[in-house]
Order: sequence, then structure tokens, then C-alpha cells
Amino acid sequence: MDITPLPEITHQSLRIRRPLPLDCGVVLDGVTIAYRTYGTLNAARSNAVLVCHALTGDQYVAETHPLTGKPGWWNRLVGSGLPLDTERYFVICANVLGGCMGSTGPRSPRDDSHAEPWGIDFPPITIQDMVRAQKMLIDELRIERLFAVIGGSMGGMQVLAWAALYPDAVFAALPIATAAYHSAQNIAFHEVGRQAILGDPDFREGRYWEQGVIPAQGLAVARMTAHITYLSEAALSRKFGRRIQGGSDVGGALFGERFAVESYLEHQGSSFVRRFDANSYLSITRAMDFFDLAADYGGSLAAAFRNTRTRFLLVSFSSDWLFPTAESRAIAHALNQVAANISFVEIVSDKGHDAFLLDEPDFSRTVAGFLAGSAVAAGI
Amino acid sequence: MDITPLPEITHQSLRIRRPLPLDCGVVLDGVTIAYRTYGTLNAARSNAVLVCHALTGDQYVAETHPLTGKPGWWNRLVGSGLPLDTERYFVICANVLGGCMGSTGPRSPRDDSHAEPWGIDFPPITIQDMVRAQKMLIDELRIERLFAVIGGSMGGMQVLAWAALYPDAVFAALPIATAAYHSAQNIAFHEVGRQAILGDPDFREGRYWEQGVIPAQGLAVARMTAHITYLSEAALSRKFGRRIQGGSDVGGALFGERFAVESYLEHQGSSFVRRFDANSYLSITRAMDFFDLAADYGGSLAAAFRNTRTRFLLVSFSSDWLFPTAESRAIAHALNQVAANISFVEIVSDKGHDAFLLDEPDFSRTVAGFLAGSAVAAGI
Repeated sequence: MDITPLPEITHQSLRIRRPLPLDCGVVLDGVTIAYRTYGTLNAARSNAVLVCHALTGDQYVAETHPLTGKPGWWNRLVGSGLPLDTERYFVICANVLGGCMGSTGPRSPRDDSHAEPWGIDFPPITIQDMVRAQKMLIDELRIERLFAVIGGSMGGMQVLAWAALYPDAVFAALPIATAAYHSAQNIAFHEVGRQAILGDPDFREGRYWEQGVIPAQGLAVARMTAHITYLSEAALSRKFGRRIQGGSDVGGALFGERFAVESYLEHQGSSFVRRFDANSYLSITRAMDFFDLAADYGGSLAAAFRNTRTRFLLVSFSSDWLFPTAESRAIAHALNQVAANISFVEIVSDKGHDAFLLDEPDFSRTVAGFLAGSAVAAGI
Repeated sequence: MDITPLPEITHQSLRIRRPLPLDCGVVLDGVTIAYRTYGTLNAARSNAVLVCHALTGDQYVAETHPLTGKPGWWNRLVGSGLPLDTERYFVICANVLGGCMGSTGPRSPRDDSHAEPWGIDFPPITIQDMVRAQKMLIDELRIERLFAVIGGSMGGMQVLAWAALYPDAVFAALPIATAAYHSAQNIAFHEVGRQAILGDPDFREGRYWEQGVIPAQGLAVARMTAHITYLSEAALSRKFGRRIQGGSDVGGALFGERFAVESYLEHQGSSFVRRFDANSYLSITRAMDFFDLAADYGGSLAAAFRNTRTRFLLVSFSSDWLFPTAESRAIAHALNQVAANISFVEIVSDKGHDAFLLDEPDFSRTVAGFLAGSAVAAGI
């Protein structure tokens, strides 16, 4: 496996002056948030849209990624004339706390007087901690109210946390392909990935940087496992079926030929390790696993949204088995209990969880229509 | 992880005198098949039932396992007064070719003049090769026709291959929770497991025995991944939900507490590596992945069963997402095309693929009824 790390680059970022108290009790000082913006903030500072990224996403939403050279991960949705129209909205996306694309995370120095990275000693973070850090960024940008907060998967968890923690700062919330808690099955898949990373001899108890190695094999296996859960059986069958793709380059006679789906997964694994940090993967999967919004409100999800005036658009995808429609429906029920302004759309797609990142015209139209209507209501 | 291997034991076995030609072209000489029997073969030699085991199963169907001390894996179905009634039937189960419980596999000596094990040079085998080896055992036992062949998961694949290869030797066939081909998603999950094994530094290119190690971590990760696919989301939620179980014994501060589902999976992984061989895991998963019965008959599954006089009972479980009901239905359609004698039952269960191994009264009753009716028809 080619594990040459890509070059270190400098990300646009902002150092937060206030301390950030985490749910675990630790207070982080001098938190850095790396972020990107697209479009122009209007004079009333009322047209800002915050995009929250998923587990392995980052702030490079709608531009070529400076590290990988790949197109922005949501360039189908964010841009001039697109549903998140950068002619109309000021789009912000920040790398999450715990991430590895410039925001404070396990790879950051422990503090100003200790240059060595946190590594596995980085405090356990929550989805709410990520959102609190984003709120500090928004405050620094002197934006009082976000016109909209949108995100899929773990990004959708952040949207829900935003609406619960800062209801007056969110005019419209769009949690996409997500859930108000992480299921036992999803925790289990994450745990397999973590065990693969922890078991890699190059993990070195999380101090692999200092020793000039990375737990590439473990991280690749983690990525491969997760990647299967992002696709539907139909999508995998359509893309690969049982097609054979050349001989095996691993193992002995026992193997013989390889299936196309195997080569694809291996490529997913090996390209991932070049751009993502293993300790960040541990930290962020952990945050997702511990997300259970209702638990913070006495077991009542409705209580999390009591008196909300935020408008909601919930979107699920019919073939998403990682965050199935039933979990979005549960959020819809809770919002209905508090008489929230809510739309809920299940998009028929056979592309699985990944559908929110792919070309799904019905999804784009739904988001565009909801935002346009909300913009009128918000007077922008 | 405790990786103390359990003691070597001697398994009841039979050395096949005829050479075994494999699908790959290699001819194996002196194949050994380890097997167990329960009940008594009647004078007419007409009451034999062959049980085919799944990927990680073995021949210890209905008795305490000599290695692990655990009860037989199908002791709910096989025994006196049970659906596979050992007062009435002579039940046989053989460890599959490629296995690690006494039958010829990667751990066997290469040939009579080379004591070192095959390891990763063991020839690639197919489900059909496993069945041909079983047929040789049945021939040695001087049984011309099996009253029934039954198996779940990979065992069900063998049942289908038996019915296709030796239609006159199978009076009744019971493929349970299975499919006539392995899907892209299933291949993908297997590939993750194989990558975890191959990436374990203790794999040593498949020569770990000679070096006194085993790729325990990789094999455990493979087992954990597979284990998730054996359960339904509902079963995982019911068993564990989001229950916390003590603190983490791995990693640093980053982790904090552990979910019960994590401890459970880790236990599954670590107990598995004490009883199963990594090269066998590679070999057998490979055989499953390459199974595509229709492909052997010009792409027509119906052609595999042309002129069959075997009676079939197909069983699927409603929450099995590894071998979903649709895949059993496809087999039923093919059998209907050739006007076979077929019953097809979907058992409503929320236990996932594992349901075929668990206490499912409807399943037991279905099998018992079908076998009793077939026994009358067979005159036993």
C-alpha cells in the first residue's frame, strides 16, 4: 500500500480567544478552527449558511481540495446558481473540532508551552462540543443568526445539536440522512474500525507521528468497513456485481482472481490513509457513537426542541441502511410534538447513505425549494 | 487479547482413497475428512441426513465441542425427539474441505513426503469441491442416497450444490438462509476481513505456525465485522442498545467509557481466534465469494436443477440482511421453472441471519414437519 503522506499545508483558520469548555469537563484554551467561506455576507449579516461536514469530510465544500486535488465534496449543492446559491448566501464550513484539516484535534500541540501533539490524550469530545466551537467561530464572524444550518450524516447530528443548543441563532435547520442518536449497529461498525486501528503495530499507542509511521493498514480496514455501510446492496451490485478484475496481487495460490469490488475497496482504503489522521478517526467516531440528543433532555427528544421557532427540513434516502428513514421519522415525530414548522421528505434512491453526496436531482430540488421559501420568510 | 491456543486434539476422520480433482485443476491426494455421526444407520441405509456447516462451524453439531467445551451448534435441531430426530435419522456432519477441525485444509501437510503445512499455497477451493469431498465420504460410508441434506448460510450453498451435482443422491434438500450466489455486499464484507488478516504483521505470509505466532488481531477484526452482519439492527439494539459497560481498557483519555456492544464484539473476536485458523478463514470465505451456481449452468439457475426429483424446503428469515428473503425467492423461482417439488417459508424473526442457529420455534416446526412428511414419502 502506498502510504506516502501528502504535503503539510496551511489552512485558513481562526484562533478562538475564549476558552472552550468541553462536555467531559476539560477546558480547551486557544482552540483553532479552520474554515472556508463562499459568497458574500450581506450588510444585514443575515444570509449566512453553515454547512456541517460528515465524519471524514472537511471544510473544502465547493472548491478543489488543496491536499487531494479532488473537487469539493458538495460542489453539486454549493455554488453559483446551485441550491446553496453563493450569489445569494454566504456559505461557511468549518473543519470539526477533533478533525485533522486545521482545526484543533489530536494532532494539535497540547498547549502553547508543549509542542508535542495531544495524540490519544486528546480529550473525548462530543457532537455538542463541535457545535460550541462552531458557535464561537460564528460569533467571531459577528453573525448573530444563521439563516440556515445544513449537514448530512454526522453533519446532520450537528444540525440537530445547533437547533437544540442555539434555537435563536438558527432560522432554518436541514438535518440530512441522520439520526438523533447512533444505533447499536452503527456503534458496532465503528468499533470494528477502531479495533483495526488500535491493533495496527504502527499505531504505537497513538504516538505514530513522533515515530515516523502511520497505522495505514488499520485505518484502511476501518475505512473499507465504513465504506460498505455508506453504499446500498443495490449500488454495490450495480457498480460491481460479481465482476472479476484481474489476478490477485496478495497472498498465494489460495486467492486466484479478484473481484472488482475488492479492488475498489482497497483503493478507498489506501487513498483515505493519505488524507486522514487515525487519532482523529478514533476521536470523531467516538463523538458520533456518544451522540444521543434525547438523553441530554431527560430522555425526551421533543424536549430538546421545546419552543423552537426554527424551520426544519428533514431528508432521508430510501436505501440508506446506516441512517434509515425510521430514524428521521423519529425526529419528525419529536418536532411535531412541539408543533415545530417541519417538512420531511424521503428521497427514493438506491444509492444508500452516500446518496446525500451524489447527484440526486430530487434531493437538490427539495433543498433549493425549502431554502428559497425560507429566504423569503427570513426577508433575504 | 488472550491468544493462548487451545490444545491440539484428534478428530474422528476418514482418509479418502480416491484422488479429489478440484475445480481449479489441482488434484488432491489422500484427502482427510473429519466427521461426526449421531443416531444409527438403518438396515436399508436409507435414513442418512447430511448436515452442512456454515463458514465458522464444524462437525460438532449436537455434542459438547471437544476444543471449546461449548454445546453443539445445532443442538436445538439435532437430537432425540428434535426435528432432526436421532432416534429416526442417522445424522452426519463433516468438517468442510479447507477447514481447520480435522479435514484437509491449509493447515494439513502438503503431501505424504512434505510435512510442512500448505498454508497460503493451499489450492483455491469451491463450494462444489467441498461437496465432492463430502460425496466421497458418503460413498465410503456406503450410503447411496441421502434422505436429506440440510444446512444454513454457507451450509445452504452446499445443499444447493449437492442437489445440482448429485440429484439422485438427495431425496430432500433444505437450503436455509442462503443464496445461489454471493452478493457484492457480502464479498465486500469478506474482503474487509481478509485485509485485516493479511495486514496483521503476525500473518507472516501465511507461515505463522512455523513462527509460533497467529494473526490474532486481524482474525478478530474479521470475525467482529462478520459478526455484525449476522445480527439484525433490532437484535443488536435489543441486546445492547446504547448501554454503557464500564470504562475503556484501551487507548487514552480519548475513549472514556465503553458501550456493551463493543465489549461483546471484542469477546466474539478474541474467543474466535482460539478456535479458528486464519488461512482456513481466507480459503473458505473465498469459496463462498466465488459461489455462483447459475454461472456453472450457462447463467440459468433453473438449468442447475433440470429434471430434479428432489423435494426442497427453502427457509429464509425476515430480518436476515446478509442472505435476504429475495435471494431465497430467486432460488424458489428457478425451482418452480423446472416444476420441482418445493416449499418456501419465510420465518418472521428479528434476529437476523443468526436466527437459523437460535431458538426459533416456527423454524423448528417447519423443518420437523417437512422432514416427517418426506420420511413417509421416502418410506422410512
